[in-house]
Amino acid sequence: MPRSGRRRGDSGSRDAILGAARSGFAAHGYDRATIRGIARAAGVDPALVHHFFGTKAELFTSAMSVPVNPEQLLPAVLAPGTDGLGERLVRFFLTMTTAADSPFAGIVRSAMTHDPSARMLREFVTREILGRLVLAIDADEPELRASLVASQLVGLGMARVIVGIEPLASASDEVVVSAVAPTIQRYLTGPLH
Amino acid sequence: MPRSGRRRGDSGSRDAILGAARSGFAAHGYDRATIRGIARAAGVDPALVHHFFGTKAELFTSAMSVPVNPEQLLPAVLAPGTDGLGERLVRFFLTMTTAADSPFAGIVRSAMTHDPSARMLREFVTREILGRLVLAIDADEPELRASLVASQLVGLGMARVIVGIEPLASASDEVVVSAVAPTIQRYLTGPLH
Repeated sequence: MPRSGRRRGDSGSRDAILGAARSGFAAHGYDRATIRGIARAAGVDPALVHHFFGTKAELFTSAMSVPVNPEQLLPAVLAPGTDGLGERLVRFFLTMTTAADSPFAGIVRSAMTHDPSARMLREFVTREILGRLVLAIDADEPELRASLVASQLVGLGMARVIVGIEPLASASDEVVVSAVAPTIQRYLTGPLH
Repeated sequence: MPRSGRRRGDSGSRDAILGAARSGFAAHGYDRATIRGIARAAGVDPALVHHFFGTKAELFTSAMSVPVNPEQLLPAVLAPGTDGLGERLVRFFLTMTTAADSPFAGIVRSAMTHDPSARMLREFVTREILGRLVLAIDADEPELRASLVASQLVGLGMARVIVGIEPLASASDEVVVSAVAPTIQRYLTGPLH
């Protein structure tokens, strides 16, 4: 009896935290939402949020049902340095967007229509993905380079997953990687001007 | 009296045609909508639609309030051939998307959310823009090349106009052209594999 009660309590707390996280990120954006504020809205202790979900980035990916946590995957993509990083980033992006349960399309669609979603997504991508990428770029104008990388990858996701521009939408990952990786690599390490 | 009556009649017919065009393109898509069907829905002769609005592409750009008609502008961009075409296409796209009255953001937003808009937009872009671009590409796999060009340009519009990824969103046109034109040029004429 206590055991099943405990399990229901955990599950109820987890759901309350995820609901409060979705509301909190939508209301305040990714940057200004806090674990403490989300815990208060869920009626739990902040330590329980950390215990269940880890960091703010991990809570965000859980609340938004993002199947891949960039905080776990991205360091492995970035660690070997900028040699071949263009190709590794394209493969990473293809994994993130084309997984069967990827919410990429849903997230981008809601970002298009609801300004809070757009802001939340922009702040998350800027801080947790581009912010880490900027630190890995060993060239002038790293912020401009990271935003150019983002423009090609976002456009690739739009063309393949959302608008469906053929033949790119149906092209194999290998065709996409060989065509797009040199673009990403030049944005990362090549001349821009 | 007849003169003002005539003017009101013209204006009423124009509005009826534009309304019927918006409904017709949304219901049937760009490819399957016809001038004849739109004229019938508006209660006018097809010749009047041609007289007021020209071709189907021109009627579409008028109905969607696109400030630049690609049927007029694109031939000038394509005519000089593939030398420097990457740069000319980037400049063309910046003109289309950043004009003060550009409906780019609105069109892309509605394309994200309403499947009929997505289909209509995809068909228009595929036929009237990518279709012309494919014919101008003098290299293997012209369709794949055109869709790669589209992926970078759509992503550029997303990053600058819709999501606002800095510093790219605020970068000058000259910075964007020098960074992105080589990407477009490689997609048009360079090695893909």
